[in-house]
Amino acid sequence: MVTGTASTQDDLRRLNRARLLRRLHEVGAARRSDLVAFSGLNRSTVGVLVSELAEAGLVTEAAGLPGQVGRPSLRVQPVPESAVVIAFDLKVESTIVALVGLGGGELWRRELRHERTDYAPAEAIRSVLSLIRQALRRAPEGAAWVGVGVGVPGVVDHADGLVRLAPNLGWADVPLGQMLRSALESEYGCVPHVSVSNDADLGALAEHVRGVGVQARNVIYLSGEVGIGGGVIIDGRPMLGAGGFGGEVGHMVVNPQGIECRCGARGCWETEIGRDALVRAARLRDEDASVSDVIAAAAADSKPARAAIDSAGQWLGLGLANLVNVFNPEVIVLGGHLRLVYPLVSSTVLRQVQLAMPAAREQARVEVPALNADSTLFGAAEAAFEGLLADPMAVIAASVHATAS
Amino acid sequence: MVTGTASTQDDLRRLNRARLLRRLHEVGAARRSDLVAFSGLNRSTVGVLVSELAEAGLVTEAAGLPGQVGRPSLRVQPVPESAVVIAFDLKVESTIVALVGLGGGELWRRELRHERTDYAPAEAIRSVLSLIRQALRRAPEGAAWVGVGVGVPGVVDHADGLVRLAPNLGWADVPLGQMLRSALESEYGCVPHVSVSNDADLGALAEHVRGVGVQARNVIYLSGEVGIGGGVIIDGRPMLGAGGFGGEVGHMVVNPQGIECRCGARGCWETEIGRDALVRAARLRDEDASVSDVIAAAAADSKPARAAIDSAGQWLGLGLANLVNVFNPEVIVLGGHLRLVYPLVSSTVLRQVQLAMPAAREQARVEVPALNADSTLFGAAEAAFEGLLADPMAVIAASVHATAS
Repeated sequence: MVTGTASTQDDLRRLNRARLLRRLHEVGAARRSDLVAFSGLNRSTVGVLVSELAEAGLVTEAAGLPGQVGRPSLRVQPVPESAVVIAFDLKVESTIVALVGLGGGELWRRELRHERTDYAPAEAIRSVLSLIRQALRRAPEGAAWVGVGVGVPGVVDHADGLVRLAPNLGWADVPLGQMLRSALESEYGCVPHVSVSNDADLGALAEHVRGVGVQARNVIYLSGEVGIGGGVIIDGRPMLGAGGFGGEVGHMVVNPQGIECRCGARGCWETEIGRDALVRAARLRDEDASVSDVIAAAAADSKPARAAIDSAGQWLGLGLANLVNVFNPEVIVLGGHLRLVYPLVSSTVLRQVQLAMPAAREQARVEVPALNADSTLFGAAEAAFEGLLADPMAVIAASVHATAS
Repeated sequence: MVTGTASTQDDLRRLNRARLLRRLHEVGAARRSDLVAFSGLNRSTVGVLVSELAEAGLVTEAAGLPGQVGRPSLRVQPVPESAVVIAFDLKVESTIVALVGLGGGELWRRELRHERTDYAPAEAIRSVLSLIRQALRRAPEGAAWVGVGVGVPGVVDHADGLVRLAPNLGWADVPLGQMLRSALESEYGCVPHVSVSNDADLGALAEHVRGVGVQARNVIYLSGEVGIGGGVIIDGRPMLGAGGFGGEVGHMVVNPQGIECRCGARGCWETEIGRDALVRAARLRDEDASVSDVIAAAAADSKPARAAIDSAGQWLGLGLANLVNVFNPEVIVLGGHLRLVYPLVSSTVLRQVQLAMPAAREQARVEVPALNADSTLFGAAEAAFEGLLADPMAVIAASVHATAS
């Protein structure tokens, strides 16, 4: 069940319609009887709400699956071509874009590689707009374009998409959400739902909705990139904090005798398990080496590379035990390069996690992402769908038709 | 606005009635027009719902305050004598009990001191029952007794009141909630709402509802007792985690080169700022010395005592910076002995907090509790009122009359 605030009967109807569409978007096709059971609404109310969604083209109804016992229940399914969003994962070395349909399926994708440095905000906006044009050319005939979602490796004010700090992009106080809205307004005359969020927050969202955290109410996602970001789902909802800046677990100090972090503190978790820590400890010559290079060196029997990975495993486990004590999550998902490192050090990590308080550690699983390297990208798509899923009829009525552009 | 799940019109009416009573309980007397503005409901709906609450005796209505412009709005106020709860703070060396009326005011209190050791669960239940009898004798004529709330310094399964671990009481896997319910059932034949919770979780709740966190959506409360507990409010709601075991920030490892904690890990935050750490570092002869003794020794110019307090300030600040990064709270409340230590080391602490990420630290205040030493006690009262506030009419209909017992 989804919670919301309903004061009047109109609100209630709108909320219930939105709950049904969100359910279909997240879980896929369902029988009417499943929707009745899920929603707690009576059969006729579900019938009316589904008809409204069908009239808007968002779902179709067909006879129930064969082989069912009793009166067949109508089967309701979301129409992927009815509404689309465009999702971006802005990474330090590349931009990944995907066109995603209602129901969460990928319709098209592209990756644009670029230089690590000098990725100026205006340049980023130009790339994003160019990729939006390409994506819209691939959009199904008649699809409503209902959102754009962007994941950024940095501290983002969720409310307005202000990127407060993205050190690895070289950004500080970049109003990315506003810049994007202005650019869309001048190009299309109408702006769909725009969401700019922290990459790890989106990773957490995607793994919660469609990945290893589907059954869980409390999920932590760690993005291992140059830095270590964190996204946290508490009781089924993203933890934002006062300004949307929560989850910066990479700057949890775990080793006060460690080295200075680029944030100014000493011994942050990311100075022990971030990419730079691994590359430095592995003594690779290339400063731009990746964690994959470290893993390859370790496989080729480089002692420093093996030591670097072992050390990262120790510190990863210590920090995870902290997160287990602090959050009591069902699942911690290790994304980015942690996804590659974890299988090599899992026994060390799990031994360290055993040092968390018993009640909490018994309930915690450590996992790699079900969506592999795409958690942030699909999380950006989910965030972009939020407008539609909050109020389907209003958004469809106001939406830009993708193929009209 | 309070959120809830409403599927039918009956649910909606029940939810809205509950929202109004919760508002009056938390904020006190309000004009009908305030309730209209607060709830988003129309005037006549508010009128009907308030009348129902008045018929149940929970609120009264009177003419508006003099001196108002325009048509006077009726003034609605909660009736403290209509419904009462009994709240307990089970501390290591004493049990504090209070009788609290609707609206949150204290009607009576008592403190029972006991030995630190050998506080067996059965003995605790006998004390609690005896104190309940005493409290009920002080209850107003005709009051409905709607709940019992208990705060425990330990890891508690919120759902059923199972105390998983309360090392300083010497308890492990004590089904306190169930024991209390059985005892009440056999003594009174009817059980009000029973809540058993972690002491810091209740501290957070009370400071959020009635203390320094009233305006905040994200509040962290730290209980400095023998150990360091944490209670966390995220976006206005208690953070429970998978099993209600979240917030164990005292076992966040901050100093891997530190001493072993009684939890088995090394360098937990509480091994640096807990009472034992302070007493040990201050080199007081009495092992049962309190933090007040350490503070007195420092005031009397004991060098080790001053060093103990300075060191606690450093580690307190380091851990608070971690919490600011992890949660992005508006307020962190320092309860228990931290309330006494903080004023002596606030400049050190705030300098350390400056090492948190700028976006998050700009939004964070560090405070001592508005409810002084009573945050847990009043939090237990709030938790005890939860049953009534979730569904006033059903609870009043089923409740035990305090004075009948």
